[in-house]
Formats: sequence, structure tokens, C-alpha cells
Amino acid sequence: MTQRAFNFSAGPAVLPVPVLERVQRELLALPGPRASILEISHRSGPFLKIMAAAEANLRQLLSISDSYTILFLQGGSRLQFSMVPMNLLGETDRIADYVVTGSWGRQAAKEAGKFGDVRVAWDGSSENYVRTPANSEIDAGPSAAYTYFVSNETIEGVQFSAEPPANNSTLVCDASSDLLHKRLDISRYGLIYACAQKNIGPAGVTIVVVRNDLLERSSDALPGYMSYKAHAEQGSLFNTAPTFAIYVVRLVTDWLLNEMGGLETMHALNRQKADMLYEVIDESGGFYQGHAAADCRSLMNVVFRLPSDELSAAFVNEAADGNMTALAGHRSVGGIRASIYNAMPMAGVETLRDFMIKFREKRG
Amino acid sequence: MTQRAFNFSAGPAVLPVPVLERVQRELLALPGPRASILEISHRSGPFLKIMAAAEANLRQLLSISDSYTILFLQGGSRLQFSMVPMNLLGETDRIADYVVTGSWGRQAAKEAGKFGDVRVAWDGSSENYVRTPANSEIDAGPSAAYTYFVSNETIEGVQFSAEPPANNSTLVCDASSDLLHKRLDISRYGLIYACAQKNIGPAGVTIVVVRNDLLERSSDALPGYMSYKAHAEQGSLFNTAPTFAIYVVRLVTDWLLNEMGGLETMHALNRQKADMLYEVIDESGGFYQGHAAADCRSLMNVVFRLPSDELSAAFVNEAADGNMTALAGHRSVGGIRASIYNAMPMAGVETLRDFMIKFREKRG
Repeated sequence: MTQRAFNFSAGPAVLPVPVLERVQRELLALPGPRASILEISHRSGPFLKIMAAAEANLRQLLSISDSYTILFLQGGSRLQFSMVPMNLLGETDRIADYVVTGSWGRQAAKEAGKFGDVRVAWDGSSENYVRTPANSEIDAGPSAAYTYFVSNETIEGVQFSAEPPANNSTLVCDASSDLLHKRLDISRYGLIYACAQKNIGPAGVTIVVVRNDLLERSSDALPGYMSYKAHAEQGSLFNTAPTFAIYVVRLVTDWLLNEMGGLETMHALNRQKADMLYEVIDESGGFYQGHAAADCRSLMNVVFRLPSDELSAAFVNEAADGNMTALAGHRSVGGIRASIYNAMPMAGVETLRDFMIKFREKRG
Repeated sequence: MTQRAFNFSAGPAVLPVPVLERVQRELLALPGPRASILEISHRSGPFLKIMAAAEANLRQLLSISDSYTILFLQGGSRLQFSMVPMNLLGETDRIADYVVTGSWGRQAAKEAGKFGDVRVAWDGSSENYVRTPANSEIDAGPSAAYTYFVSNETIEGVQFSAEPPANNSTLVCDASSDLLHKRLDISRYGLIYACAQKNIGPAGVTIVVVRNDLLERSSDALPGYMSYKAHAEQGSLFNTAPTFAIYVVRLVTDWLLNEMGGLETMHALNRQKADMLYEVIDESGGFYQGHAAADCRSLMNVVFRLPSDELSAAFVNEAADGNMTALAGHRSVGGIRASIYNAMPMAGVETLRDFMIKFREKRG
């Protein structure tokens, strides 16, 4: 049996061990259909029960009311970069506000520009994406079809602690790297989505929570797969759903509810894990330099630099020897990124903390 | 350990047991990254090796030259229904010919109509989709940007035994339910695609083989994920690839090459399996009525009717008692559909054949 490392990958990312063990146990045959989850029809009773359970778990974890539809789609966040404007701009109202706090917001705004007028309501690029704006800095207007933001910028490790205002337009959120890390007031959102492979499951499924009235904005002229309305009308079975990925989402949300005690407990744990690493950074006398401003630090992606690229490389290599993997920062930012999603155990963060302290003592 | 049934599902469908066993064995941690295949980055060395191996296997099995790019996409065949016309119609030449031999061809033609002028070059609907056309019946013209057909109509069980002519336009094929069931002359095609969940892997990945020169038809104004060129330029890493599904495709193609002896042997076996069932139909004195004309019968989906809906229901129920599942026909056609893809073992088909004979003796 291969030993497991502490895996700090930004995504696809670590999953809970009890979830992996259950997938493994059931892989050759689920009891009912006597076939693998990989082999059963997306329209079969056993799969429909799995998808309904995944949806019910999400509704329970985030208190999502019946005024919202939950969709399980393919194509990742990239497809959402297009689907959001293609559906929500509607036929006439073709202005959207984008609050840009990092790389993914910038990409989403660029893509939206193919379909309408994008107004950048705030742009953190001149400050190198180190913070989120104060509400008073955001220039979003009621004339926009929607106001878009990224709750947690995975590459820069910059996270909103509360939703920005939508100024009477519809709030849309890419929560790809932090959905389910804490409770949210979903009623503030028109649409919130997340690809699963950071905090919710494996790559290959994206969860879209959309307020029902917004489905009416989807034009019948849209490419079939790009219409939220088409997916909603078919209960996410417009075509063959990514069955296995949805099955894992069901197991991860089971784990959150039954083994982790729900999102309040999870959030407290996430804060404890993140604080442990940021404390080492703050007490390193400048050896470790955090990327994000202190009050905008991500609980999911702890991004920091060492005094040189050589030291960063040595850090990554020696950490791997100590059973900690995938710590190199994103190629556009460099340095170190420790992604500590829900499924990263406390022991992993403690091991990294101890290593960071020793590495600084040795090389600082 | 749950017993496995003989699973005749049309898709997601049966996978080879050695593949499932390997997935199970490796599920908690791949040796190199010491993490599950579900947890490693799509840009990590170990995953890139897996994707390269899947591509190399496909190239070997189908003798695909470097003049073609192989893409691993999400969104299923439904997304291809849109992507094909959105990319291949180009900016000026907006006519496409569709040869419609069943339900999926009809849907694809309807979707293409959103993006250009669709000419139905042959339509089997008035004959209830029981056959493919003779080449002389196809009214495809050189003015079309492409000529589209479905090599195997999964619902009706109607299969082309050879490609239809493209009449100097570009041949495009939806091979979702029969790619890899035999060798093909890929040089006849401009583009051929297949969602994996019938013959190649689990739901969640679609394989697109596209001739390189056609990539130039993709406009930069397309929604990002909808551009073949964007995916090709990024080596299928335009965004996070469906890593697990691609890993299974690699294992299935390994199995075809190393355990099944390649596609010629596989094709001979597929013919043997299909003949076994069609023979029972032909010798049933009309008790079993095959849907497809004899020379257009699918080797993948054996579709037939019994004298009444009651007998069909009894057939499905008694088969399930005999460890054979998912035999009900598609809801639009009724009757029985036995899908016998590559991974359906001979023993499964023999068991079904014996059951069909006994059921007729008892109820005929």
C-alpha cells in the first residue's frame, strides 16, 4: 500500500480519506445495481438517488431554499465564465460589473467582454492583487445586469470575508475555491458557482446555484449546453451527467454533515488551520512574506514568498522529503502556495508549520 | 463483496473488470504522487504522463497520424452538437449537410440549425430509422462546410458498416457509441468524436479527433471553452481536465492493446457476440422482432421488440432475476435493448442468448 503524503495541491486537491475509502470499497459494484458507479445510467434509480442526496446535502449545508435551483454541470469554471454572461446579460440589458481581485476575475471579465459591455467596478491589478476592496471603493451600478466577484482568488490567496454590495443589481459569485468552507447567506446571491475540484469533489463537475427567476433570462437561441434553463428543466440531465464526480460530491457532503458537524465547525477548523500558518509568516521576521494584506488573507490558499527563488525551490524539495507535496506557487506568482481546503487534516498543517519554523531556523 | 450483474446498459456502460480492479487498487494513492488520482493537479507530471499515454494508446489503436489533434473535453456529445457547427461552419461558409439515421443525428441537426443552414442530406425518419442510406441516396454537396453522420445510433441500434461519402466536403462523425469497436481509416474524417461512457470509459470526458487544418476555422469570438483551437493550443489543458475520466480511458485503452490484442481481435469478438443474439432473433419465428434492417444492424446495441409491452416487461424482470440488468429499450422506442460494448464479456452474451431462447419457449 502506497503511503499518502500531505497534499497541498490547489486543485484537484486533497479529499477526505473516509470518502476515498468508501469509493474504493464500492468501486466494483454498488449493492443495488450490482454494477460500478462508473457503469450505471444517469437515468437509473440508484444514480438519481445519489444525485438527489448530493443536492439535499448542499441545501442543508448552505440553507438553500426552493427559490434556487442547483445544477451539476461539466466544463469547469471556464464554461461558467461564458455561461454567466451568455445567460444573464439577457437580450437587452448588456452591461455587467466585474469586481476584479485576482487572476480568475480578470479572466472572467475578459471572457464576458465577448458578449456585452463589461465595466470593471474595482480592479486590484495595480496593487498586484493583494486585497479586496472596501465596499465604498466599488463602482457597481444598478444599471448592470449583474455584479460579479470571485470570493477567493486561488492564485493570489485573497479572499472576501463578506460579500461585496451589488447595488440593486444581481450578485454573481465564482466560489470555486471556497464554497463549503463556511456558511453563506445564499439569499444575497443571484447565482453562485464552484467547480468541485478544490473543496467539494474531483474535477469534472461544477455546482451552480441559481435563483429561479434568473432562468428566464436564458434565450432559446443559446447553444444547448450553455443554457441554465435547459439544464434546470431537465434536472441536470440535459445530457449524461458526470455521474462519478456527482457521487463523490455526495460522499464529501455526507462527510461534512455527519463526520465534521457541518459548516460552522468546519469554518472554525479552517480558521485555526490558516491562523497556524499565517502566525509563522508574521513571526518570521520577514523571512516569509505573505502575499495578501492581513485582513484579506485566504483561509484556503496561503500564499507567501521566501527571500529568493533558490530558497523557494529548496523549501519545496525539502518539504517533499518531509512528506508534504504540491507546495510550489502558481507559475504566474511564484513562491509557495499551501492550499488547506476542508479535507486537509490538522496534522498536515501542523507538519507544515513545524517544517516552516525549522526551515527558517536553518536557512534564515 | 457485492456480486456483479451482466450489465447491458447503453451508457454509462460496462467497463472491463481488470480496469475496475486497477482503479480500486490505486484509489487511495498512486505510487509517484502519493495521492489519489482524484487529488492530483491536471498540470502535474504524473497526470501529464497519464494523459499522454491515453493519447498514445488512441493513436496506436486507430493509427491516428500527427495530422490530427486529439482533445479530451467535457460536456459530452451534446456540447459537440454545438461545437461542431460553431467551429466548422467558419465565418462565411454556413451550410452543413446532415445524414440523419436516428435520434442523435436528428438532435445534432436541430442544434446546428442555430448556427447556420442545415441541409438534411438523407433522413430515415419516415422509415422509423431502421437503416442507413446507400451512398447513392445521400444528397450531400461540395458546397457544404461539412457532412455529418452518426456512425451508430444508440437508441435505434442502426450502424453504418462503412463511412458515407462526403462529396468533397469534410466528413464529421459522432462515434459516441462505437468508437474503438473496430479499426477505422481516420484519414477519411475531418473530425470524429465520442463521449467515453459507452465504449471507452466513464461519463465526463469526450474524445475529439480533429484534422489540424480545421482548427483554423475556430473564430476568436467563440465562447472560450467552445473553441477547438483554444483546447488544441493548450493540449487539452485550457482548463482543469476531467482527470479521473482520462485516467480510466488510459486504462481501458491499455486493456484493448495489451489484453484484448487490439481492435481487429476486438472487432471479431464484437461480431461474434452480436451474431449470437441476432441469430436468436432471426430463428424466433417472429417472437423477437429486430428493429434495424438486417444489413444495418448495430454490433453495439441490439434492439428488438416482443409481441406485447407486457411480455417486454416480463422479459426485463425475469432477466434481472437471472443476473442480467439494464435491458429495457430507450423510452422513445420501447422493447428491449441489449448493449454489448467491447467490455461486455462473451459469458454475458451467452447468458442472454440462453435466456432469450428459454423465454420464447416458455412464453412464445
